[in-house]
Amino acid sequence: MSTQGDAKPSAQWRPPYLLYLGNAADDLAIKTARGVAYWRPEWCVGQLRHPDCKPTLDLPDMSMAEAKDLGANTMLIGTANAGGTMAPEIVAAAIEALDTGLNVVAGLHHKLRENPDIVAAAQRNGRVLFDARDPAPGIPVGNGRPRAGRRLLTVGTDCSVGKMYTTLALERAMRQRGLLADFRATGQTGIFVAGAGVPIDAVVADFISGGAEWISPARHDGGWDLIEGQGSLFHPSYAGVSLGLLHGSQPDALVLCHEPTRRHMRGLPDYPLPELKPCLEANLVAARLTNPAVKPVGVALNTSGMAAGEAADACKRISDLLQLPCQDPVTMGVEAIVDQLLACFAN
Amino acid sequence: MSTQGDAKPSAQWRPPYLLYLGNAADDLAIKTARGVAYWRPEWCVGQLRHPDCKPTLDLPDMSMAEAKDLGANTMLIGTANAGGTMAPEIVAAAIEALDTGLNVVAGLHHKLRENPDIVAAAQRNGRVLFDARDPAPGIPVGNGRPRAGRRLLTVGTDCSVGKMYTTLALERAMRQRGLLADFRATGQTGIFVAGAGVPIDAVVADFISGGAEWISPARHDGGWDLIEGQGSLFHPSYAGVSLGLLHGSQPDALVLCHEPTRRHMRGLPDYPLPELKPCLEANLVAARLTNPAVKPVGVALNTSGMAAGEAADACKRISDLLQLPCQDPVTMGVEAIVDQLLACFAN
Repeated sequence: MSTQGDAKPSAQWRPPYLLYLGNAADDLAIKTARGVAYWRPEWCVGQLRHPDCKPTLDLPDMSMAEAKDLGANTMLIGTANAGGTMAPEIVAAAIEALDTGLNVVAGLHHKLRENPDIVAAAQRNGRVLFDARDPAPGIPVGNGRPRAGRRLLTVGTDCSVGKMYTTLALERAMRQRGLLADFRATGQTGIFVAGAGVPIDAVVADFISGGAEWISPARHDGGWDLIEGQGSLFHPSYAGVSLGLLHGSQPDALVLCHEPTRRHMRGLPDYPLPELKPCLEANLVAARLTNPAVKPVGVALNTSGMAAGEAADACKRISDLLQLPCQDPVTMGVEAIVDQLLACFAN
Repeated sequence: MSTQGDAKPSAQWRPPYLLYLGNAADDLAIKTARGVAYWRPEWCVGQLRHPDCKPTLDLPDMSMAEAKDLGANTMLIGTANAGGTMAPEIVAAAIEALDTGLNVVAGLHHKLRENPDIVAAAQRNGRVLFDARDPAPGIPVGNGRPRAGRRLLTVGTDCSVGKMYTTLALERAMRQRGLLADFRATGQTGIFVAGAGVPIDAVVADFISGGAEWISPARHDGGWDLIEGQGSLFHPSYAGVSLGLLHGSQPDALVLCHEPTRRHMRGLPDYPLPELKPCLEANLVAARLTNPAVKPVGVALNTSGMAAGEAADACKRISDLLQLPCQDPVTMGVEAIVDQLLACFAN
C-alpha cells in the first residue's frame, strides 16, 4: 500500500513516526493513526500502546527509546478523546517523548503548545511541537487569480463520506501510471499523511479560500494537485468551509464522494442527503466562479454498508444517471475515474 | 436620526462613547466612528481629535476627562490604519483613557488585549477592553434546527455595497411603525452600533453558521431579527462567510443589496459583478437549505455614484426585472421594502 514516497514532509517535524495509541478504547479513537499507517507505512516505525489499549495497527509495539533507535523523528499522537481534550497520560507521554529526543505532533482540539509543561520539555530538548489544527501563520486572503497547473478537488454529499481516502487513492493510482500527482491535505489526518497542509476548517473564516490557494500554488511541471475536500455544500453546519475550499482550489476536475446508505446529514437527523445530480450541479456552478472550465470526472461511492452485488448495482445506476464512472475506491479502485480524468484533460 | 434606543449594549463595555479620531487623514479612516455617530447619536458624547486630524463628525470636541465628566463610559477607537496596526499614538491614547476611568474598545486588526501596556492599564484601573474582531468564546457549531422568530438577512452582489446601512435603515423604519425589530451585527462597526454581535468573518471557519445562529436565537415576541449580511456568494475571497451566514441565519426574508456603478468585485479587477437575477436566485437556493420558505422582499440600491434621474430609472428597471420594490435607503428610504415584508408575512 506504499506510495511513490515523494511527498514533501514539513521541514520542522518529519517522519519517520512513532504512532502513539495510548489507551485507546476502540478503532474510532485511532482513526488518525490508522490513516497514516495505511497511506504512509514507510513512515511508520512502530506503535506505542498502553496495556489497556484495545485496537492495534499491526505495527511493531515499541517504547519511545526503541523507536528513536530505529530512526523515528517524531511521535504522532494518533488518538482522539471525546472533545479532543488532552488527557493527563497524553501530557505525560508527550513530555517523555520530547525527553527521549522525539518531536511531538498531534491533532487534538486542545493544543500541545498551550500546555506549559509540554512547551518547556520541547524547549529544553530543542524539539518541535506541531498541532495539526493550528493553521500556519501568514495564510493570505484568497485572490481568485487564475494560476498555472491542474487541480482536482473531491467534493461530497456530506461530511465523512470518503473524500480523503478517495483523494489519496487517486494519488496512488496516478503515480502508479507514472503521472505527477500530489495529495494536498486540508484535514488533520491528511496533514500527517502529506507531512504538510492547512486545517481548512480551523482557519479564520475570511481566509478559507486563501488557505486553499496556499496549499495548491501554481505549478508548471504538468502535474496534478489532488485537493482533499471537506464537508458539503449541503451541510448546514459547515457549507461555508466547503464553498471557500471550492473557490480557492480553482479545480479543473471534481470527483463527487457519496455514502449511499446514510440516512441523514452527519449529526443532523432532520436533514436528508441531497440528490446526487443537483449536488454535483451545485458544486459545478459554484466552482465555475473561479474556474469556468471545471469538469466532473467521476463519483466515489463508499459502499462499505452494502453487499457486493448491491454495491455494483448502485455504481451502475449512478454511472448511468450522471454519465460518469462510479467506483468504490476501497473495493474497486479508481482506475475508471483516472481514465476519465485523463480523457478530459488530454493536452 | 435617533433610533428607538432599545438595543441592548454589552454588559461589559457600555456606551455612552467618546469617539477617538486621533490624527485621521480622511473620512475613510473614521468610517467606524462615523457609522456609530450616525446610527447611535444618543450614545456619542463627543469626539477626540488630535491637532492634525482632518475629518470631523460634527460632535463636540473634548478631552477624555471632559467626556468622562459628561457621562462617557467607553472610548471607541474609531480609526483604521492601513493594515489595522496599532500606531504608538493609539497605544498612548488607550492607556490615557483607561487611566481616566474609561473602558476602551476598538476594531483594529492588532488587538488591544495583545498590547501588554494597554492590558496593564486596564487592570490597574479595573476597566474593560474589547476588540470587536475577537469573537466571543463559546460560539457553537451550527445545528441547523429550525427556531422560532422571524429573521431578515441582507445579502449582496459584492462586499461594501450597503448591507449594514440597509439593515439599520430597516430597523429604524420598522421601529417607527411600532414593530419589534432588532439589528443583529456581524461586522465591527455594526457591533459598536448594536453594542453586541459576532464578527462573523473572524470566527474559525467551522463556526460561521453557528455564529449566525448565536446572534439571532429563537424569539417568541413576534419581532424581527434583522441580520447584517457580509460579503457575497459571488466574491471568490469571502463567499464561504456569506454562505455560512446565510445557512445559520435561516432567513425568512432576504433583501438584496447592490451598487450599480461598480465595475468589478471589490479588490478583484478580473471578476465582474454577478447579474442581479441569478445572484438573488443563488442566495434563495442556498437559503432554502435551512429555511425552505425564504422569500425575497426587496432590493437596496446604493446609487451614490449616479445622478438622481439615473437612480430612479435604475430602481424602476430593477423593480420590474425582479418584481420587487427597489430603493436607495439613503435617498429614498426603505418604506416600500418594509411594505413588501409586511405583505409577505402578514400573519
